[in-house]
Amino acid sequence: MGLIVQKFGGSSVANAERVMNVAKIVTDTYREGNDVVVVVSAQGDTTDDLIEKAYEITEKPSKREMDMLLTSGEQISISLLAMAIEKLGCHAVSLLGWQAGFNTTSAYGIARIKSVKADRIRAEIDRHNIVVVAGFQGLNKYDDLTTLGRGGSDTSAVAIAAAMHADRCQIFTDVEGVYTADPRKVPAARKLKEITYDEMLELATLGAQVLNNRSVEMAKKYNVKLEVLSSLKRVPGTIVKEVAKMEKMLIRGVTKDTDVARISVTKISNTPGIAFKLFSVLAKHKINVDIILQSVGRDNTKDITFTVSKGNAEEAVSCIADAFDISEEDIICDTNVAKVSVVGAGMESHPGTASKMFEALYEHDINIDMISTSEIKISVLIDIDVADKAVSAIHKAFFPEE
Amino acid sequence: MGLIVQKFGGSSVANAERVMNVAKIVTDTYREGNDVVVVVSAQGDTTDDLIEKAYEITEKPSKREMDMLLTSGEQISISLLAMAIEKLGCHAVSLLGWQAGFNTTSAYGIARIKSVKADRIRAEIDRHNIVVVAGFQGLNKYDDLTTLGRGGSDTSAVAIAAAMHADRCQIFTDVEGVYTADPRKVPAARKLKEITYDEMLELATLGAQVLNNRSVEMAKKYNVKLEVLSSLKRVPGTIVKEVAKMEKMLIRGVTKDTDVARISVTKISNTPGIAFKLFSVLAKHKINVDIILQSVGRDNTKDITFTVSKGNAEEAVSCIADAFDISEEDIICDTNVAKVSVVGAGMESHPGTASKMFEALYEHDINIDMISTSEIKISVLIDIDVADKAVSAIHKAFFPEE
Repeated sequence: MGLIVQKFGGSSVANAERVMNVAKIVTDTYREGNDVVVVVSAQGDTTDDLIEKAYEITEKPSKREMDMLLTSGEQISISLLAMAIEKLGCHAVSLLGWQAGFNTTSAYGIARIKSVKADRIRAEIDRHNIVVVAGFQGLNKYDDLTTLGRGGSDTSAVAIAAAMHADRCQIFTDVEGVYTADPRKVPAARKLKEITYDEMLELATLGAQVLNNRSVEMAKKYNVKLEVLSSLKRVPGTIVKEVAKMEKMLIRGVTKDTDVARISVTKISNTPGIAFKLFSVLAKHKINVDIILQSVGRDNTKDITFTVSKGNAEEAVSCIADAFDISEEDIICDTNVAKVSVVGAGMESHPGTASKMFEALYEHDINIDMISTSEIKISVLIDIDVADKAVSAIHKAFFPEE
Repeated sequence: MGLIVQKFGGSSVANAERVMNVAKIVTDTYREGNDVVVVVSAQGDTTDDLIEKAYEITEKPSKREMDMLLTSGEQISISLLAMAIEKLGCHAVSLLGWQAGFNTTSAYGIARIKSVKADRIRAEIDRHNIVVVAGFQGLNKYDDLTTLGRGGSDTSAVAIAAAMHADRCQIFTDVEGVYTADPRKVPAARKLKEITYDEMLELATLGAQVLNNRSVEMAKKYNVKLEVLSSLKRVPGTIVKEVAKMEKMLIRGVTKDTDVARISVTKISNTPGIAFKLFSVLAKHKINVDIILQSVGRDNTKDITFTVSKGNAEEAVSCIADAFDISEEDIICDTNVAKVSVVGAGMESHPGTASKMFEALYEHDINIDMISTSEIKISVLIDIDVADKAVSAIHKAFFPEE
């Protein structure tokens, strides 16, 4: 009994049959005595089809018109879902982002939610309606439609849950929850019952793309209890909240991220401020840097090694070559690397976590390139070819099979 | 030089190539020194595709959700057209019905425009933007999206032209203008330079589906100068206005309407009020009656004959049988009829028009079933098989080939 926000992605509403499946989940939740707000994305390939239409017209569509175009996608899915809910005998009303009170910044394509004025949603709930809200979209101060960018619908759902103090925000996906490792790669992977916001953030950053980072950050900020669960199997998922039971586990999971390139800059003269200069050049080009390693080389020169995402590697190399007036050949860029990490708030009080991880890698003859640690995470950079083997080995060390 | 409202239908923007063609017309008009507001419908089959999606979910979609679904169609076409205009080097901004200030009644699917608050359109024009407005849609007092029903985009265009006192409202279609007869059937048909609102209204009612009736009525009420012209051929079209030059023509055109059924009710007892009862029964069933003919039959019974549209014929027969407690066999329904009409304000002062029309039919051995006249129109009901022959004969009588 309470207010539940449910979010379904594009593949969950891709066709009439799936829309009916979602309607069944929603009406079941309503009939159990809950008020329900549903957030949906555009159907399956709709967004891609619309983008293609735009590029048939022009190679440089304006961002404002692109948002006008793309927001039609959720408009279709919310009306279809409302019809499906009504077919199952419940009252429903669909609302566009602006009708649901989403005020955003004016940055088309990557707008951020400024506020959610949920009066209309509340009024519809008072009329015993199930409210179906278009995710991913809002209205800026010019009364123009905006989109929230990647993972926007997750963020929409969490924002409504926060604004309305919902009892739970359920994110339905095609997996059953958050696992200790990718279950397709590591058969022994276990589904977690609970996980903290911070752990979830680390997992998201590290490539376990179950939840969008912005939505987890917002859930943490407003203390929204999240649940990640399957839209196909009716089983409990994983709860994300402030304090999670540890279940005697040191770590929550082992993840792999292959969108990594390692860049080594050698032979830079060893003068003060050189690292500052290098990373400010990258920042100016909006290139995020992850792991950093610095050492003094021979001949009074410095070696600086760092990682960026693969998509940024080429630009990083060329802007550094420009800034330091060195040849691009003196910059080594390796894209055959992967980052493997263990994540878990439990490791803070267990100094043995790192050594246990390194031992597992050593036992499997896996060489470590770089190491990075935080309070709830240890990452190593290794050869991409042995990444899956590394994940399995580390997972086995921390989660011995029963 | 002035403010021009241009309207393009769904087939004019059906694909990228046609969208670019429309953008060319629009930007040419702008570059000639005009302010331009463009109203567009949904692309080609979009609306039909969306309706099909709804019926895959439910056989009885709610009207509110149907409007939510269908209005996404124009949202796609306005953004694509704005992109196309920008590609051609002009500034453009697309606006949804509610952004353009369309307030409507709350009747979903058949809403009527209550007002157009054109502040936003005006502001965008002041910023030197070409404004692309979604036709067919508006917002009701509940802040919900509505659609205007058949021919709604024509009405949207005229409403903007009226609200902004535009110098002209151009309706682009797949024909070059209004003709004295259907040019596909009557090769000698001439394009009219000018026509009055009332004549246009009669032509629309009579099946020359160039302009929607509601839009012509609104244009007449607010004295909006309309122009019907081709989106494919760059030639002057037909102007619709209050007083049109007659160009020595008695009539404006000859039209044919085959969506007619003739119903004869015989053997009703000849008591007062019987006609009233009959037509009030039809009105209660929302069946429009066109031509009416009444005569006293034998045995003190009445014969009443009238026409309705084909789609209403069956219901008309059954509800009359019910109301008068007579057998359906006593009601004769003939759907093999057509209504052929001559329209023109000029005939008012020329009593010979009717006889000229009847003479043409007589010369071609065409039998007249029923006759109906108004100040600017004479209609005859004839056998459907000779309707095209009748149109040609009448056209030749009034517009002798040079």
